[in-house]
Amino acid sequence: MSSTEGPGAGVDVSQLQPSSETPASPPPTLDSEGFPEAPVTPGLPGTVYLVGAGPGDPELLTLKAYRLLRGCDALVHDSLVPKALLDLVPERCERHFVGKRRGHHSVPQPSTNALLLELAGRHRSVVRLKGGDPFLFGRGGEEAAHLAARGVAVEVVPGVTAGIAAPAYAGIPVTHRRAGSSVTFVTGHEEIDKGRPGVDWRGLARSSDGLVIYMGLHNLRRIGQELVAGGLDPATPAAVIQQGTVRGQRLLIASLAELPDRVEAEGFGSPSIVVVGEVVAQRVEACAPEPADAEMPIPF
Amino acid sequence: MSSTEGPGAGVDVSQLQPSSETPASPPPTLDSEGFPEAPVTPGLPGTVYLVGAGPGDPELLTLKAYRLLRGCDALVHDSLVPKALLDLVPERCERHFVGKRRGHHSVPQPSTNALLLELAGRHRSVVRLKGGDPFLFGRGGEEAAHLAARGVAVEVVPGVTAGIAAPAYAGIPVTHRRAGSSVTFVTGHEEIDKGRPGVDWRGLARSSDGLVIYMGLHNLRRIGQELVAGGLDPATPAAVIQQGTVRGQRLLIASLAELPDRVEAEGFGSPSIVVVGEVVAQRVEACAPEPADAEMPIPF
Repeated sequence: MSSTEGPGAGVDVSQLQPSSETPASPPPTLDSEGFPEAPVTPGLPGTVYLVGAGPGDPELLTLKAYRLLRGCDALVHDSLVPKALLDLVPERCERHFVGKRRGHHSVPQPSTNALLLELAGRHRSVVRLKGGDPFLFGRGGEEAAHLAARGVAVEVVPGVTAGIAAPAYAGIPVTHRRAGSSVTFVTGHEEIDKGRPGVDWRGLARSSDGLVIYMGLHNLRRIGQELVAGGLDPATPAAVIQQGTVRGQRLLIASLAELPDRVEAEGFGSPSIVVVGEVVAQRVEACAPEPADAEMPIPF
Repeated sequence: MSSTEGPGAGVDVSQLQPSSETPASPPPTLDSEGFPEAPVTPGLPGTVYLVGAGPGDPELLTLKAYRLLRGCDALVHDSLVPKALLDLVPERCERHFVGKRRGHHSVPQPSTNALLLELAGRHRSVVRLKGGDPFLFGRGGEEAAHLAARGVAVEVVPGVTAGIAAPAYAGIPVTHRRAGSSVTFVTGHEEIDKGRPGVDWRGLARSSDGLVIYMGLHNLRRIGQELVAGGLDPATPAAVIQQGTVRGQRLLIASLAELPDRVEAEGFGSPSIVVVGEVVAQRVEACAPEPADAEMPIPF
């Protein structure tokens, strides 16, 4: 624990403004309320931080992610990151967008890896900002391995995952004593990675008490059929939370059997989290926070 | 990496001391760089915030949790919350500990529910701080339901769960494209809740690509046997992370078959997270952050 400047109680917003005069070599002296600057790996290349941005609500950012964003020299981000967070970086910061634009594919992973490598050779502190958590369906493990193998200093910064927070913003706990002892986080977008083994939906139907499905909307009908084939009651409660935690959040609750038709009829789209299981019946509507009035960089 | 190493690591508690002059009635006006203060439910009873404290490293607290702690009138917390976070509350704040003390049981859930209810009748802002996330094995759903049913305003604040962050602080991604499409979060401490249905370990062995087991150390031998009986290769890589993200963090990596003996021989204890699956083989040691120099309120 180190000391920092600043009065401690309350934050002087002017001190929070990044200065464009900040020299590139020494560590940035951040505001803060006592969140000390991290000593940075000396010399070049710099450090790449794989940072979880959380699910969308800017207030669900961690203190560490906040500190790193405030002091970074380069920022590489994708679509599922609110504008308010992008605005935290200093003016001098070099920004790169590698997400999916409407009607276009994402920047391919090898290009992103190459970009991070290149930036680490020119900058002291590079933030690779990812929606949610970098190590839960975030490909953070691949980027970390790529960089580490090339001698680049890299560090992961966990974040709040949308699979927990989006249901919470609908009042749904992903586990509950009355709804079992397990919850499985699974991607419904299997074809995105050809090499990935298929999901054993039937097996999960039998063995996992709850399911939280990322990117599952496109395949929802087939997933539902597989779950029922695996033994799940078609009446099992299910929910879809679109744009969880931010402006435009939408919620649909239906039985597993009815869910695909309802999703189509009501025009639900990505990004959405699907929850299947008795936990949906444990919903406490009153405890759901108000979604943040936050804009995402790319309109949905 | 190593950005949090050394004396600069963690949170400077002295700078974080809230001012005792903070008035009790208006909502706390904190920093905010555009993060709006949450409107507080007017009048009495107050609002109970079910707040995730994150996995231990104080810097993995969310901005929202930070803001609420800084302005709360009462704090109710358990064991898995670092001291640095408890010190964030104003001096006027009434504190209650409801966790497990060494050699004692936790305060029973009905007593905690009653305490929260009572505090909500006397205070404007009550923070119920829980290690990790309140809705993932945190019983937040039960507390929310109890309070909402009695007309108390209640709001959940998601946090970073230890099941993702503790592995990350060991360099282990809980999902990886080369290690499947799913990860199951499951409690290994089934007997803690007699009413809870048993975990189908054999089914999970077959259907889930990775497992993250909370409170699993005590039953590790039986869990391992069940997983192997369910078809998991005894050579499947596994890991135990004790006291993940904070001072004293320990890591053990072994095959599933060897894990129980190694845990015993090396004296691993609670709190620990167990990871089973090919994701352990995808570990990138270099990307693991330095554990925070943080103390927990109850020695382990």
